Amino acid sequence: MFDFKYYTPTKVVFGKNTESRVAELVKEFGGTKLLIHYGGGSVVRSGLLKRVTDTLDAAGISYVTLGGAVPNPHLGLVYEGIELCRKEKVDFLLAVGGGSAIDSAKAIGYGLANEGDVWDFYDYKRKAEGCMPLGVILTIAATGSEMSDSSVITKEEGLVKRGYSSDFGRPRFAILNPELTMTLPDYQTACGCTDIMMHTMERYFTNGGNMELTDSMAEGLLRTVKKNALILKNDPKNYDARAEVMWAGSLAHNGLTGCGNDGGDWMTHKLEHELGGLYDVAHGAGLAAIWGSWARYVYKNCLHRFKRFALNVMEVEDRGSDEEIALCGIEAMEDFYRSIDMPTNLRELGIKPTDEDLVLMAKKCAAGLSGGVGGSARKLDEAAMLAIYRASI
Amino acid sequence: MFDFKYYTPTKVVFGKNTESRVAELVKEFGGTKLLIHYGGGSVVRSGLLKRVTDTLDAAGISYVTLGGAVPNPHLGLVYEGIELCRKEKVDFLLAVGGGSAIDSAKAIGYGLANEGDVWDFYDYKRKAEGCMPLGVILTIAATGSEMSDSSVITKEEGLVKRGYSSDFGRPRFAILNPELTMTLPDYQTACGCTDIMMHTMERYFTNGGNMELTDSMAEGLLRTVKKNALILKNDPKNYDARAEVMWAGSLAHNGLTGCGNDGGDWMTHKLEHELGGLYDVAHGAGLAAIWGSWARYVYKNCLHRFKRFALNVMEVEDRGSDEEIALCGIEAMEDFYRSIDMPTNLRELGIKPTDEDLVLMAKKCAAGLSGGVGGSARKLDEAAMLAIYRASI
Repeated sequence: MFDFKYYTPTKVVFGKNTESRVAELVKEFGGTKLLIHYGGGSVVRSGLLKRVTDTLDAAGISYVTLGGAVPNPHLGLVYEGIELCRKEKVDFLLAVGGGSAIDSAKAIGYGLANEGDVWDFYDYKRKAEGCMPLGVILTIAATGSEMSDSSVITKEEGLVKRGYSSDFGRPRFAILNPELTMTLPDYQTACGCTDIMMHTMERYFTNGGNMELTDSMAEGLLRTVKKNALILKNDPKNYDARAEVMWAGSLAHNGLTGCGNDGGDWMTHKLEHELGGLYDVAHGAGLAAIWGSWARYVYKNCLHRFKRFALNVMEVEDRGSDEEIALCGIEAMEDFYRSIDMPTNLRELGIKPTDEDLVLMAKKCAAGLSGGVGGSARKLDEAAMLAIYRASI
Repeated sequence: MFDFKYYTPTKVVFGKNTESRVAELVKEFGGTKLLIHYGGGSVVRSGLLKRVTDTLDAAGISYVTLGGAVPNPHLGLVYEGIELCRKEKVDFLLAVGGGSAIDSAKAIGYGLANEGDVWDFYDYKRKAEGCMPLGVILTIAATGSEMSDSSVITKEEGLVKRGYSSDFGRPRFAILNPELTMTLPDYQTACGCTDIMMHTMERYFTNGGNMELTDSMAEGLLRTVKKNALILKNDPKNYDARAEVMWAGSLAHNGLTGCGNDGGDWMTHKLEHELGGLYDVAHGAGLAAIWGSWARYVYKNCLHRFKRFALNVMEVEDRGSDEEIALCGIEAMEDFYRSIDMPTNLRELGIKPTDEDLVLMAKKCAAGLSGGVGGSARKLDEAAMLAIYRASI
């Protein structure tokens, strides 16, 4: 068991119509002039943005708006947001949307609270010393960015996708209304469930630390998301299932499911990041497409965890050798992905990289890691990464 | 499922020797002049207090000290602390100890940040509008006060024991070093484990709300504490078991295990509070002594939850009627209490109240509840409370 820090200061307000409390929460955390940052048109079309601005108008809170945050949000828009906020003397950021809008807002917040180029933080050059306060109205359950310390930004030049983590970036409040996620396309719902589970699985498959308490809660979370992802496939407007998934999304990535471990494995995420850099793929689907190949490559080096996962999460029968049980667990997970229409390889993901592409991705992935090596379940170097990519086509 | 708020801003620093980071944390949260508040002599005898003051001295942070917080901490000491802090211009409170020192420090904090008599808050007369910032070095895993919004104070006159809850009272940081709990007497360790489990069980046995995610994590927490309480009975210096119990203590009462429910039952706590008011009993032992009688009185009104508890926490066999399974679960819980030397009735607790005492306790308990009625698993009025007390002798 390793020592740990646990810090989740975000005030979560969860339930129906909770977006009506946005003005009250902004005031509680000292905001007087907002940037409302959002993504595509759905926030506008659904009427959510209007409801939010009406509430702010009624409370006498002024704001400017900036839309356009895209999946794998772009650095260019971050620069634009920083400039706008400086000009308009914004003192509080409100992200309305999913991970893209939140991550983009976090980057704007770092840019506003620190001198120099905000990309420096994402490029591992220096650490942020603050972040403009940020609140969230969540519309997609997936990235967990509404409670997490992390954000991921893509620099357009060279398509470099990088993450930065700092407690300064944790939102002050998060409004979670499961009803706002009911109109998501099935594919995005399934991608979200995959991403949520993976945030906890990355923390679960480790060769260092582990607490029984953390494990038991992580397993409960994984079983819950799995069950409710299947419910949502047939009944996408099921409020309770939406609520289970939404709350799981926050808890899966706020640190709770990693307490006591060595920091986690994170190689499925790193391998997917390179996919997301080169191809226009949904993050969750990319994770599903890579995970099975990763799992088969590493499971013998982390057998006790894969066996436990098989028994306690996938609920496979406790029969056969440890290896057999572990493999049954991996197969059951892939079956689950298929059952919610997620891919289990790159072909099903809809991309056909050449071997040169795979070599390039492995090279870039290794280059982004200290010493060119990463992972906990099994340490992976560039050759191992390439082997996993090749197994995933 | 009910809407909920989840707010746990406390920064937890967990692991060996983490008390050495106290000065850094005090500075992070803006403290310049401290009141160090502690309980009995063990904090002094163990050398912990000296280590803390040495660290503060080295960092140039000045402080005054106030010991003497007792279980069921007294209002008189709270007044004394408020006066001392005003005189010494204290701006940050540091509680070193268990729930008594923390609860007492919270009350001092309310007294300092608000005009008028601090007892008003505990007497339901008005609400606090702030609390002086508070940090914690925890030495006993039990009450969860290190992350919770609640504190319990006893007014000496009439032995009135009352709780007050407010987010203002949540500590800014909590230093959790499992090693500091290793020298606790077995009885106190068992009382702590009982209290921890009860904080989650009070939230679990309800007839309103319930989320699958919350349930699965609550059940994992309960199984973990049960398992590790038994390990500690034979191996009290087992670091991992101490760590599991300590972290469970914080999560059991910070709100996590109640998300989505109706607020919880809390009648075992309320019934025990009256015991604690009249007799010198350890809180955890008092809870164990009452719980079985409460459970048998209410389980038919909350059968689905008692059945689930039996299967998923006590791991009894899924055989027989729902009532039989529920009763097996209650019996298994009582067997567990006996296995860690906790009482399952008032006689085993070491007290022999007269029937007049029981009548008085039921009267006081009902008087402390809005409309004289409380509970969720089953609504209890004064007559029901008396029936439970009578069944528990």
